[in-house]
Amino acid sequence: MTGVASISPERLWSRLMELGRDGALPEKGVNRQALSAEEILSWRRIIAWGAEAGLKPSTDPAGNLFLTLEAKFPHLSPVVTGSHVDSQPTGGLFDGVFGTLAALEAVTAIAEAGMIPDRPITVVAWMNEEGSRFAPGMMGSELFAGKRTMDEIMVVKDAAGISVAEALAAVHAAFPDIEHRPLGFPVHAYIEPHIEQSDVLERAGAVIGVVSGIQGKKTYEIIISGREAHAGTEPMERRQDALQAFVRMALRMQQDMAIDDVVKFTIGRLEIQPNAPSVVPSSAVFRIDLRHPDNAVLDRLGLRLEAIVTEEAHPCSFHIKRLVDAPSNTFDEGLQSAIRHSAGRHGYSALDLLSAAGHDARQMAPLAPSAMIFIPCRAGLSHHPDEWAEPEHVAAGAAVLLDLLLEQTGLSQKYGDAS
Amino acid sequence: MTGVASISPERLWSRLMELGRDGALPEKGVNRQALSAEEILSWRRIIAWGAEAGLKPSTDPAGNLFLTLEAKFPHLSPVVTGSHVDSQPTGGLFDGVFGTLAALEAVTAIAEAGMIPDRPITVVAWMNEEGSRFAPGMMGSELFAGKRTMDEIMVVKDAAGISVAEALAAVHAAFPDIEHRPLGFPVHAYIEPHIEQSDVLERAGAVIGVVSGIQGKKTYEIIISGREAHAGTEPMERRQDALQAFVRMALRMQQDMAIDDVVKFTIGRLEIQPNAPSVVPSSAVFRIDLRHPDNAVLDRLGLRLEAIVTEEAHPCSFHIKRLVDAPSNTFDEGLQSAIRHSAGRHGYSALDLLSAAGHDARQMAPLAPSAMIFIPCRAGLSHHPDEWAEPEHVAAGAAVLLDLLLEQTGLSQKYGDAS
Repeated sequence: MTGVASISPERLWSRLMELGRDGALPEKGVNRQALSAEEILSWRRIIAWGAEAGLKPSTDPAGNLFLTLEAKFPHLSPVVTGSHVDSQPTGGLFDGVFGTLAALEAVTAIAEAGMIPDRPITVVAWMNEEGSRFAPGMMGSELFAGKRTMDEIMVVKDAAGISVAEALAAVHAAFPDIEHRPLGFPVHAYIEPHIEQSDVLERAGAVIGVVSGIQGKKTYEIIISGREAHAGTEPMERRQDALQAFVRMALRMQQDMAIDDVVKFTIGRLEIQPNAPSVVPSSAVFRIDLRHPDNAVLDRLGLRLEAIVTEEAHPCSFHIKRLVDAPSNTFDEGLQSAIRHSAGRHGYSALDLLSAAGHDARQMAPLAPSAMIFIPCRAGLSHHPDEWAEPEHVAAGAAVLLDLLLEQTGLSQKYGDAS
Repeated sequence: MTGVASISPERLWSRLMELGRDGALPEKGVNRQALSAEEILSWRRIIAWGAEAGLKPSTDPAGNLFLTLEAKFPHLSPVVTGSHVDSQPTGGLFDGVFGTLAALEAVTAIAEAGMIPDRPITVVAWMNEEGSRFAPGMMGSELFAGKRTMDEIMVVKDAAGISVAEALAAVHAAFPDIEHRPLGFPVHAYIEPHIEQSDVLERAGAVIGVVSGIQGKKTYEIIISGREAHAGTEPMERRQDALQAFVRMALRMQQDMAIDDVVKFTIGRLEIQPNAPSVVPSSAVFRIDLRHPDNAVLDRLGLRLEAIVTEEAHPCSFHIKRLVDAPSNTFDEGLQSAIRHSAGRHGYSALDLLSAAGHDARQMAPLAPSAMIFIPCRAGLSHHPDEWAEPEHVAAGAAVLLDLLLEQTGLSQKYGDAS
């Protein structure tokens, strides 16, 4: 006997709060870096919750975590749904975790109803979406999608000199009993719920965001090399001060990037050497994060940034590393329409919008019909301990996801409305 | 029987090289931070070398190291000579160490000649001259001179959260058998040999610098507080980006400080938080090092810097901490003259010059007649692993110091010249 699948808002909320303990910061928020001990703790919780619903855990060479609900036709390609559980150093309780746990909740609801989907449903937590410990972000989904190679990623090191390969070995060693599958597999559809990380939904009073696409993004690492010298004796005109070269670049970039009200330009990371009060800095290494929904504009601004580095570096030398170059993309129209209809059935007001933030769904879109379901994020504040989503919005996002999973796996259920 | 005191250039040079092993960097240069394990190693060497010459080691509550040659009249105030042995994170083999070991060599020469000075001669290695681990620098000499209090200094912490009190306790624990004397004592005269750290002597082809004074210096710590936010979603006009506020300040400072060819303006240290590539920085903390020989100009530039912080911080908030405010000083005319005469006797060309770098001698000048003997520094490069002084200049500096010590302690010896 199969019943009607429905999510448990209370269970989903309590799990969200519980996961916030892994890497909890002293006051609030979390620091749960990719492939860290804190992320291992979160994997344990998620695998245990999945086991309660009969989901089978597996991982791959990229360190992605999968939990699969078996199907009537187990060899059909799965519907994949989820997000990530790593956070920024001062992250909140919802970014990534909401999508992962909403996916787990929706699949759990199907399993608890005794329903058997036509094709498998796989909950995913992608490796290193944030890119704050190991750069760039989206490593797990990019490896899955073949956008980067294992050779290229495994040698990336964190600030402490630990490589992705070493950190990944530690994670895999912590889970000796779960299945290791090869990298990449055919996907029937991909659906990622996420908090909006901006305040478009909140301002519009909408509950569900139907994401049309993700704005383009370029990231760079710029290395400026000067010459260290004594701050009290080296004449100003002879200095090769790497920090002052940075300052000249950063000010012109800030001015030249301010072309409209949708561009986003950020220098979030900067390290100078030797970083001593009375030594002229010999090097400055910084990261640029540039986003714009219009690919032509994004490309033009990227060229402008590179020109500024070239023009302002003197008398220092420089090196420009292009880390990410992701154009804007468009999500599947059919899935967008399904999200809109599900929201309507539940009485949630929905709004079409573009994602300003990057997400793993960007990598999945070329592989399979893909979509994102946004819920509001208080004041648009994300990557911050104060990040917040309302319990009723969390439940709404999971309920819409459940509808989509049922439709995608031949389980569409009757609704109590008049249609 | 007493002979003629003369320094050993070979011994002095080999000890300079040997001390370079404590905190040696992989390729060249040293990282020997104040009160570190590496500095403890250097203390061990210096105390052992002093013991060979009969010098008695002692320390004080400030963590200064003293080695004293006893005198005919042991209760007369000593002539104090030396410098420091701590280094910048990427320091060289000569800054500080040359002065300390030249002093040890000169005193050793006196002891080996069987001479007994009228008054004690005390070799000193001051605690934390550099100020790179614990800020500000010159802690040991400032405490000795009563310019700062123990309460104020002991709570200062390094980047790892270790306080001066804790680091000092570790150093003192490593030397349980040396005498602990109270802080401060009367000083008859103070003479500090040092590499020039600029290239005035080298350009002039001079060997001995007769230092007329030390240029004034102000240092600040500026704290900018903004608000962290998601780099992909937070609209530019709503941001409180602490790094961009820093950039605006730093560029205007660089422009406004460029008033003449003797001013020195440096931002050597900068830390941003959370320092993650896709997070708008919430804080930037930086250090300013400003020097000028004219005290009125220095004061005016200091006010200008503070005004720039105030004008450019918006929409961030700021806090200005004044760390060091040291006006230019003038060294003792009699000792300057003695240096000039000694150089002449040896046939070393001498040049009067102002020190652009700060030194512990600045603190001693108000306490007793004080002087500094400079030797050339290759290409003026200091605070750098490539820092270099020629062996013959090292020997010349120590020989001149020996003459001054003999004169100050009633031991003037006959010279082989025609005078």
